[in-house]
Amino acid sequence: MKKYGELKPSERILMGPGPSNVDPRVLRAMSAPILGHLDPEFLEIMNETMELLRFVFQTKNQLTMAMPGTGSAGMETVLANLIEEGDKVIVCVNGVFGGRMLDICQRLKADVTTVEAPWGKIIEPEQVKEALEKTKAKFVAIVHAETSTGVLQPLEEISTLCKQYDAMILVDCVTSLAGCTVEIDKWGIDAAYSGTQKCLSCPPGLSPVTFSENAQKIINNRKSKVPIWYLDLTMIQNYWGQQRAYHHTAPINMNYALREALRIIYEEGLEQRFARHELNSKALKSGLEAMGIKMWAQEGHRLPMLTSAVIPEGVDDLQVRKYLLSNYGIEIGGGLGEGKGKVWRIGTMGYTCNEKNVLLFLTALESALKEQGYKIETGIGASTAMEIYSKKS
Amino acid sequence: MKKYGELKPSERILMGPGPSNVDPRVLRAMSAPILGHLDPEFLEIMNETMELLRFVFQTKNQLTMAMPGTGSAGMETVLANLIEEGDKVIVCVNGVFGGRMLDICQRLKADVTTVEAPWGKIIEPEQVKEALEKTKAKFVAIVHAETSTGVLQPLEEISTLCKQYDAMILVDCVTSLAGCTVEIDKWGIDAAYSGTQKCLSCPPGLSPVTFSENAQKIINNRKSKVPIWYLDLTMIQNYWGQQRAYHHTAPINMNYALREALRIIYEEGLEQRFARHELNSKALKSGLEAMGIKMWAQEGHRLPMLTSAVIPEGVDDLQVRKYLLSNYGIEIGGGLGEGKGKVWRIGTMGYTCNEKNVLLFLTALESALKEQGYKIETGIGASTAMEIYSKKS
Repeated sequence: MKKYGELKPSERILMGPGPSNVDPRVLRAMSAPILGHLDPEFLEIMNETMELLRFVFQTKNQLTMAMPGTGSAGMETVLANLIEEGDKVIVCVNGVFGGRMLDICQRLKADVTTVEAPWGKIIEPEQVKEALEKTKAKFVAIVHAETSTGVLQPLEEISTLCKQYDAMILVDCVTSLAGCTVEIDKWGIDAAYSGTQKCLSCPPGLSPVTFSENAQKIINNRKSKVPIWYLDLTMIQNYWGQQRAYHHTAPINMNYALREALRIIYEEGLEQRFARHELNSKALKSGLEAMGIKMWAQEGHRLPMLTSAVIPEGVDDLQVRKYLLSNYGIEIGGGLGEGKGKVWRIGTMGYTCNEKNVLLFLTALESALKEQGYKIETGIGASTAMEIYSKKS
Repeated sequence: MKKYGELKPSERILMGPGPSNVDPRVLRAMSAPILGHLDPEFLEIMNETMELLRFVFQTKNQLTMAMPGTGSAGMETVLANLIEEGDKVIVCVNGVFGGRMLDICQRLKADVTTVEAPWGKIIEPEQVKEALEKTKAKFVAIVHAETSTGVLQPLEEISTLCKQYDAMILVDCVTSLAGCTVEIDKWGIDAAYSGTQKCLSCPPGLSPVTFSENAQKIINNRKSKVPIWYLDLTMIQNYWGQQRAYHHTAPINMNYALREALRIIYEEGLEQRFARHELNSKALKSGLEAMGIKMWAQEGHRLPMLTSAVIPEGVDDLQVRKYLLSNYGIEIGGGLGEGKGKVWRIGTMGYTCNEKNVLLFLTALESALKEQGYKIETGIGASTAMEIYSKKS
């Protein structure tokens, strides 16, 4: 009979596109004794989680909660609850996650128009305006932080256009939430979703979502049933709302973890948190550039929590990543889609996002690159980053 | 600014319809440091989890894995991956979860025929035979352990009928798996799903599924795309399989927990585990009957892990449950659907299933019932249960 040993995962520094490292406080909270999903104490935990989610989303939206699946379940929740067969939808595609939205909209049999930009570039408001003019679409779906390319998409102007054309704007905040400014109410976002394993620094398993009152009305006045039972908000809102009607069994301990992760963010403060991401990103990017490594994402629109760095010519993608993992326990991400074999995706998200990790990574990468015969001035990456840090303090 | 305190959930004895209590070993494993979802160490954990799931399902099915959602996500995974619009499906309904299967099949726009039995009774093979004869359906969907009524559905005869009529049998094992005999291969079950929070005694959040080779072929030869992106096995099988292609970010720590819960079952042995559930169920049911409380489920077909007990006349359902929770920290379930206000659902699942909990519960219930003016011989429930235990040893 085969023996299964004790679980002993290695300590990793998770600098890929997510999951990020998790504060030990979150792991401790997650392993608290389990409550029933209708226990009054758990219902209170749900209430507090909703309040804290409203805080990070910067919204007053009543329908703000955590779906029982990872980030993509949040994407599907937003799209499948709002869109009905035949609805006109504009999907903005400049990376994998825009592409995923498109795929889901097609499965929902929406009448889809795509607005595309080259990977690494933003979608221009003018493009969306043209599409709105032409299609009179009911919904515009767009990614705020495109994890496959490292691009931060400006949203305010596009959101204003949507209001003018009476369309709803649905936003992917999986990677941006709690890492840079996301202002649902101020920007007039109608619905948004995120994931727990990026800048929230909670293990993967839940997907925060938020819906404006108007969006909620659309859900509650659908002609057809939501095609997905598991993600059907017309029922789930009664479990997270006043009625507490049983729908599914909530992932209790994951909710403990999320509440604790949100509490940590609440203690740090959003502005401080965004500044921390900004600083470490700047140090990382400067260090990389000093090492002769180019950025993939369009200048002025680079994510502070995920850096897409172009792999230098002649350097073996996989060997570098293996070297970092086996010698330093550092995980970075390979490219996805068009970026495959072309870029590395280096995350500085949430709990992972600090000076120690950035400096160690730059030093470790230098070592990995030298192994590959890549010429580089010794210490240039880390010392450039250190200059950024010293200017700050 | 509102203060959010430390998480301090009370200790509960979870004797409802799930979640059940969780072995501290599982909570410890769950809070191990997080790995990336494509880390070689995590891929090995996935492999071992698949092996251990094959062990509890008693199957050689290659496509045996844990879906990233709670039990109902497993239900929707099985139905949405196999059934296409217009497919003829027989759904057996004798409780809430049969009804949920029906709801999902309707959302999938299947051509559905229902076979019904009164709640508390089993579906008779003869009924399924008639429906197969009449409809020549491609699929039969049925619940093994109906958590809303406490009924254990015999499956072998119905499975044989399905073979004769060239239909696939799809089984809900959410509550039965690891608590009583479930033999996927021997019984010829084509696809089945479960949940982690019942007899597997793991926190809720994952849903084990298994598909026969024939079922897998049907999935891979669909005419239409699976309507649900998040649960689409044509993609997910490549993440759990050899290719390791990224689909969604797996709930890493939940998978740690599941592996540990499965390892505990593997150490105990299935036969021993089933016998433990049988013994404690017998003690509980005998104790309740000695207290004058009747069983709802049909005799000879009662679940060993969930007892549906008829609430005695004049006794207030909610007050008794509140009394048990506030005085003893014991959670039992109220009725669901037709059982609402009529029965209690008392779980003896996995880690919760032991003599101490059964005896404490019977004693606590006696106290709660006396509060309600219900006449009862002092100590009769617990002493009757103890007799059962002493006979055993």
